[in-house]
Amino acid sequence: MTIQSFHPPARILMGPGPSDVNPRILEAMSRPTIGHLDPAFVGMMDEVKVMTQYAFQTKNEATFTISAPGSAGMEFCFVNLVEPGDKVIICQNGVFGGRMKENVTRIGAQAIMVENDWGTVVDPNALEDALKANPDASIVAFVHAETSTGAMSDAETLCKIAHKYDCLTIVDAVTSLGGSPLKVDEWEIDAIYSGTQKCLSCTPGLSPVSFSDRALERVKARKTPVQSWFLDINLLLGYWGSGTRAYHHTAPINTLYGLHEALVLLQEEGLENAWARHRKNHEMLKAGIEAMGLSFIVKEGDRLPQLNAVSIPDGVDEAAVRSALLNEYNLEIGAGLGALAGKVWRIGIMGYASNRKNVMYCLGVLDTVLAGLGADINTGAALPEAAKID
Amino acid sequence: MTIQSFHPPARILMGPGPSDVNPRILEAMSRPTIGHLDPAFVGMMDEVKVMTQYAFQTKNEATFTISAPGSAGMEFCFVNLVEPGDKVIICQNGVFGGRMKENVTRIGAQAIMVENDWGTVVDPNALEDALKANPDASIVAFVHAETSTGAMSDAETLCKIAHKYDCLTIVDAVTSLGGSPLKVDEWEIDAIYSGTQKCLSCTPGLSPVSFSDRALERVKARKTPVQSWFLDINLLLGYWGSGTRAYHHTAPINTLYGLHEALVLLQEEGLENAWARHRKNHEMLKAGIEAMGLSFIVKEGDRLPQLNAVSIPDGVDEAAVRSALLNEYNLEIGAGLGALAGKVWRIGIMGYASNRKNVMYCLGVLDTVLAGLGADINTGAALPEAAKID
Repeated sequence: MTIQSFHPPARILMGPGPSDVNPRILEAMSRPTIGHLDPAFVGMMDEVKVMTQYAFQTKNEATFTISAPGSAGMEFCFVNLVEPGDKVIICQNGVFGGRMKENVTRIGAQAIMVENDWGTVVDPNALEDALKANPDASIVAFVHAETSTGAMSDAETLCKIAHKYDCLTIVDAVTSLGGSPLKVDEWEIDAIYSGTQKCLSCTPGLSPVSFSDRALERVKARKTPVQSWFLDINLLLGYWGSGTRAYHHTAPINTLYGLHEALVLLQEEGLENAWARHRKNHEMLKAGIEAMGLSFIVKEGDRLPQLNAVSIPDGVDEAAVRSALLNEYNLEIGAGLGALAGKVWRIGIMGYASNRKNVMYCLGVLDTVLAGLGADINTGAALPEAAKID
Repeated sequence: MTIQSFHPPARILMGPGPSDVNPRILEAMSRPTIGHLDPAFVGMMDEVKVMTQYAFQTKNEATFTISAPGSAGMEFCFVNLVEPGDKVIICQNGVFGGRMKENVTRIGAQAIMVENDWGTVVDPNALEDALKANPDASIVAFVHAETSTGAMSDAETLCKIAHKYDCLTIVDAVTSLGGSPLKVDEWEIDAIYSGTQKCLSCTPGLSPVSFSDRALERVKARKTPVQSWFLDINLLLGYWGSGTRAYHHTAPINTLYGLHEALVLLQEEGLENAWARHRKNHEMLKAGIEAMGLSFIVKEGDRLPQLNAVSIPDGVDEAAVRSALLNEYNLEIGAGLGALAGKVWRIGIMGYASNRKNVMYCLGVLDTVLAGLGADINTGAALPEAAKID
């Protein structure tokens, strides 16, 4: 066995995540490891909490980071708030609503699915109908920014409807945090989870989460223990809480250095400025995509700026395009997922990767590769049109 | 809000983990992030698998890494192999056996506890008695290297007894992997989990695991779904398996770069050489500890070389000693945990931190700090005695 050190190729990450990691974050991750109960580290965790509250726009005391990726953050929300026999309304409009259902049924609870076409936003009226039909439902869950389709639902309206029917809300903000307006307190979100590898452009592996006081009361009123020891919020609050730190698990020290730096960067830029930057780069991408004659699957107004699902032109071998982009241009864009597999590309302009240079590069090489494959597009039109934007 | 970038102090980590991370690993973690479905990354994951098989001394195909710390690795083993109503025999001789019990009861299964005094090894006769008394038990679980006490149990004997009674075995090897002899196939371990922040001296946040074919058959024969979506081995094998990679979660890319480099380092040194190094540095520490008139709580022969629980001399404020070591000498040693809180210090000599320089430094500053507090020890005796070793 003679395996050598791994030296990754230098890619430009414009898929559904991870996004390009800011070199300041990579450098922070390489700082010397210290103990997870070291007072210096505990102080850093407190700073991560404060900056995560800022990113989520919340005063929730129960705001911290799960030591595992976003899918564990999802499971964290469900296992703490749902008990066997509970009824949970899930509004699905893509892959991740289906994953929510998996979480609910594995708890032994009942998932009431409110289905929306993939590529559309969650319909508030359909949610209200489901709530009327299921007065015993206790939770409403949905995805704010569907990474599989690029649709952004109206989280505020959905949460307010849920509360009218005395339901708590669980919101997936994996792709929205740091990239699009997200206001946990103002929108009355009770439980939220995100990921670090999207618009925070940190390395994957952590899930920022936040629980409202209403959600914490629900946890206190549980009749059964939380089925996961690793994800039990009662134990995690002892580890991340403000009192004496109680040993739970060993935090991923260096990855948290990275998240800390990502959040310092977000503070420096300002949340509103980060949202505006993602929007502006989306407008530039949109101009180029449309100039090529390509189209988005989500209708204007419902689109998530940072994740763009683009229809594949007729007769084009979509996998060959992605391979050419990756192998010849070191550019990663994403494939379709679930019902959209083979039907769309997903172009992410998230976090550090959300800049004019990347957008222009992506449009240019996509144009070149498609033209090379003889695709029916307006070859050469993309760059000049896009360049007109600011 | 004006939070600055975090610059950790330069510590020497000789507690129960994390241990000092090799600079080569820190550097590897700072390499550019690539996509988790990038063929280059998939190739790296395959190499991590092969090198983890080497570290575990197994040919198990189901050998990979959980994208979360060791406590999630523990939960992974239990939620996949235990169903509600099952009977699990847990041999406890420290904190982590208690955590196993938590895992079992949260599944709705029954934990039969075989208690051993803290600081002693698991008694094979007591296990056999429990198996005779519980012919319907299906699993035996125990900790190979108890991080809370520093006792190393005879995993081979325990596993062979369990198999005699048709039970599968779950073994916690968080602190033994890479530091002490551990032979998954030869010892007939069915399910094993470890951590990366101990003798592999990688950053915390990942849990190497392995399942035998017997364990996989048990999973296939389950009557109920695995209660965790994130930890379901059926889904994880699709992500880490040899066929087409199926998207499950987003792997913690840069942390895996670190583990890859840690395993390359282990290969370069050779597993047996790493075990011998940990043993030799333990002998040096032992000579110094005994020269000071201090003692180990685990009897000779049962001690884990890499984690040493040392009794606190009468009248010494143990927390003041740890604070002085940390604040004046940047040396971290561990406090006692659970039943041993306030009674022992835990001195780790693990991974990259397991070297002569660290051992001599630890003995020297411990001697100085204890003497400064007027402790009844053989001041000044430690260094010369220790120096005689090799």
